[in-house]
Amino acid sequence: VGGLHHLSKAGKLCVPAINVNDSVTKQKFDNLYCCRESILDSLKKTADIMFGGKQVAVCGYGEVGKGCSAALKAMGSIVYVTEIDPICALQACMDGFRLAKLGDVVRQVDMVITCTGNKNVVVREHMDLMKNGCVVCNMGRSNTEIDVNSLRTPELVWQHVRAQVDHIIWPDGKRIVLLAEGRVLNLSSSTVPIYVLSITATTQALALIELFNAPEGRYKQDVYLLPKKLDEYVASLHLQTFDAHLTELTDEQAKYMGLSKYGPFKSSHYR
Amino acid sequence: VGGLHHLSKAGKLCVPAINVNDSVTKQKFDNLYCCRESILDSLKKTADIMFGGKQVAVCGYGEVGKGCSAALKAMGSIVYVTEIDPICALQACMDGFRLAKLGDVVRQVDMVITCTGNKNVVVREHMDLMKNGCVVCNMGRSNTEIDVNSLRTPELVWQHVRAQVDHIIWPDGKRIVLLAEGRVLNLSSSTVPIYVLSITATTQALALIELFNAPEGRYKQDVYLLPKKLDEYVASLHLQTFDAHLTELTDEQAKYMGLSKYGPFKSSHYR
Amino acid sequence: VGGLHHLSKAGKLCVPAINVNDSVTKQKFDNLYCCRESILDSLKKTADIMFGGKQVAVCGYGEVGKGCSAALKAMGSIVYVTEIDPICALQACMDGFRLAKLGDVVRQVDMVITCTGNKNVVVREHMDLMKNGCVVCNMGRSNTEIDVNSLRTPELVWQHVRAQVDHIIWPDGKRIVLLAEGRVLNLSSSTVPIYVLSITATTQALALIELFNAPEGRYKQDVYLLPKKLDEYVASLHLQTFDAHLTELTDEQAKYMGLSKYGPFKSSHYR
Amino acid sequence: VGGLHHLSKAGKLCVPAINVNDSVTKQKFDNLYCCRESILDSLKKTADIMFGGKQVAVCGYGEVGKGCSAALKAMGSIVYVTEIDPICALQACMDGFRLAKLGDVVRQVDMVITCTGNKNVVVREHMDLMKNGCVVCNMGRSNTEIDVNSLRTPELVWQHVRAQVDHIIWPDGKRIVLLAEGRVLNLSSSTVPIYVLSITATTQALALIELFNAPEGRYKQDVYLLPKKLDEYVASLHLQTFDAHLTELTDEQAKYMGLSKYGPFKSSHYR
Repeated sequence: VGGLHHLSKAGKLCVPAINVNDSVTKQKFDNLYCCRESILDSLKKTADIMFGGKQVAVCGYGEVGKGCSAALKAMGSIVYVTEIDPICALQACMDGFRLAKLGDVVRQVDMVITCTGNKNVVVREHMDLMKNGCVVCNMGRSNTEIDVNSLRTPELVWQHVRAQVDHIIWPDGKRIVLLAEGRVLNLSSSTVPIYVLSITATTQALALIELFNAPEGRYKQDVYLLPKKLDEYVASLHLQTFDAHLTELTDEQAKYMGLSKYGPFKSSHYR
Repeated sequence: VGGLHHLSKAGKLCVPAINVNDSVTKQKFDNLYCCRESILDSLKKTADIMFGGKQVAVCGYGEVGKGCSAALKAMGSIVYVTEIDPICALQACMDGFRLAKLGDVVRQVDMVITCTGNKNVVVREHMDLMKNGCVVCNMGRSNTEIDVNSLRTPELVWQHVRAQVDHIIWPDGKRIVLLAEGRVLNLSSSTVPIYVLSITATTQALALIELFNAPEGRYKQDVYLLPKKLDEYVASLHLQTFDAHLTELTDEQAKYMGLSKYGPFKSSHYR
Repeated sequence: VGGLHHLSKAGKLCVPAINVNDSVTKQKFDNLYCCRESILDSLKKTADIMFGGKQVAVCGYGEVGKGCSAALKAMGSIVYVTEIDPICALQACMDGFRLAKLGDVVRQVDMVITCTGNKNVVVREHMDLMKNGCVVCNMGRSNTEIDVNSLRTPELVWQHVRAQVDHIIWPDGKRIVLLAEGRVLNLSSSTVPIYVLSITATTQALALIELFNAPEGRYKQDVYLLPKKLDEYVASLHLQTFDAHLTELTDEQAKYMGLSKYGPFKSSHYR
Repeated sequence: VGGLHHLSKAGKLCVPAINVNDSVTKQKFDNLYCCRESILDSLKKTADIMFGGKQVAVCGYGEVGKGCSAALKAMGSIVYVTEIDPICALQACMDGFRLAKLGDVVRQVDMVITCTGNKNVVVREHMDLMKNGCVVCNMGRSNTEIDVNSLRTPELVWQHVRAQVDHIIWPDGKRIVLLAEGRVLNLSSSTVPIYVLSITATTQALALIELFNAPEGRYKQDVYLLPKKLDEYVASLHLQTFDAHLTELTDEQAKYMGLSKYGPFKSSHYR
């Protein structure tokens, strides 16, 4: 998506585009809800960890970090959160997580999970301080978040113990457990529920249909959000699976709220 | 806030205005976090309810509804959610709540809580179906959500049992327990933590300072959101209470993310 | 109850007695479930505390400590648990609480809650280390758990701020907030739900009826547990409120389990 | 263990025995804490289920049922509980689960999990009513809980889709997903954390040492519980992993409680 915005700014985007990634339904499912489950699944499948009683540092408290933190807390882990953004940081506090710098808790934690979208969030200095057996993995962006290159030095021994699991052995015998060589963990070690795939595919298909059917001039050579009404339509299609029953506005209520009975129900920026 | 937007659209707004109500920090605290606590407090102080095992219908799954539902679920209640917006509805499902129409569960629930901002969400037909002892209250907007007028009819007897608590008695002896005569419950029956007041007051003060100091032309006679950076500043000031330690971007990271080290860290529409 | 056992051991109990306090139903409701709600209610009513983001030390992880810890965690507090019994301590760990000595966390916490049944769990040395504004209260036994006498010294000023709330002021201006003068908090500052009263009263009544109707010789001059079947009967009577539907064993299942279809379903020591 | 008790009652037990299975530490870990994690792990590994929004019936609310219900609720499932014992049933209600008969919810649920230790808890009549795609599995005893034999009839087609997963196809095309052919799911589809194995092995070793070292006459040809003190010792050995710090009784406190400073801290029947 970043690429599209760059093209657009540079005046090089030659067709209209819809940024489906930022539609609410897709965001929540791909990030919050999907990660809440896949972090547990990935950790079990790779490192076979017992969650109860474990101390974990989660770096980043966006949707992915929120999902990972909530899941681990629910399973009995003690979670520390790191953040750069004071608003997300305050949310982490109110959700019951200690907000700490990684350097201040890295000696005591059993696991470090990156969810920032940033680079070099876990660096060699951190890993030098970790205790024996600490698990390090990345739920965020590509393979930039953990400085894995800093571990490819002569004094450290890599031992590949099974698929997606390497032990990095320090000269004193200390091991850290690196998952998926620092690449995105749930993409390599978990599955994506078909429900989530369905949401993504439906969103993409509706965006294409919208662009194809739109009257001349509605979309220029720019990047757009999926119209709120289509986002709501995707959601409504997926409610049936849950045997969920939506309430309909009465005429009087629709008028009072200044809404159409058939949506959209929120402004396009509502999250 | 609605009023300001109306004035602005009508060209009658004669000064610039900042809509502090929609800043992230204020929203989350006034609605989600504050209601999560005040719903429990208000219900204990008025109706002295045991939460465990109770069945509750929460109407509306915005920030207020999310806060109320989470708190009651955590205390052992079984919560049903009603929604008109399929996106919020889907979130309720994924958070573990059954999504139902009020009419379909109103016979079985012990409590109905409105959090919609709409009018006539609970009407006489619903109340006729409620079981004896059902508690009805409003955590949403003013006193429109419950159709209290429909209860002021000759065949129903009102019995004022204590401050903020009325029993409405049906001809067959059935009673429903109406709290705060349908006005906003936590405003009448709970307190607002000073922490939340501090966030609100700080946000308002910073907005006024911003408008006063802004260079000519930055703000026209319109309604603006609080600049993201000020919103983040409010949050950062309130982190200290929690002994929370924010992480600072390195120069390399700031460059990678295309951010200033001192924020703003998110786009103005990020929630 | 302790008194009865002492009398019995000393051969001075002149009638049979049933220890209703240790029946499962009463225990769970009076301690775990009731305290889970009343700790929140009591703290709101006295100190008007916002729970989110607060650091709390809970001393003791029996039923009362489990209830208090779970409730505060659910409301967004960060809870540290202290314990003397390694089995309860291990449960606290697996439930996601850091197990610490009070002395090691007392400087950082916003609240200390005692739930031990022991004496002098919070002593003057702890209170000297607390930070300004720290709240201290007792959910355990009578008024022994907090050494309140150690605060009645000339250099400390007591300021009574409202019912059940005293500020104790150190020479340097630091205040700690003592609730209910160290007596049991929920007894002085919360109410007992009628549901819980009903369970207690039913248990007592059934115990008396059992003693009255028992054939000669079933009970000697000793202290007995409520027969499991009566404990189960109390529970079954209280299920109706929740519209809860119990499953009945088939003849084949009862035979397979070696149980009567009508209970008791567990050994008398099952908890 | 049942076997041992039968031998003992029949006078055929020719050596003393310690029932390590009923020691608190082993029970809680093997059942509650272990199942809380392994139910999620097993379901992901076999049926690759998304938990959020799913409706689940959990049959039985003992330690295993409590663990499974809590985990699924935490992951966003809506859980119904069935029970025969009114005391466990009341606990399920207070923990926020609807207590229902299986027959009353079996049409609507997406999953049925048995945790009863009983036989024929899920029978053909139930499975005839299940909706298409319903997952059926057993976390309880051996392979008695689901009447799998009733599915081995000519009109139903079995399709083995992968290890531990069979589709049973009804004449109208409806499929139910049977896991592990009704055998204990977590034994066949999950792993046991080494932490839990360590607790079990330590408990067994200490029991053997106790029997070997016990003075003549302490144990007769009967079945005993592990002495509380040894149970506590197992727990204390396993606290170190969590960096957990136990509090020690002062002399004054030990005297007040009538306890030794080194335990045992609870009566042998305390759970």
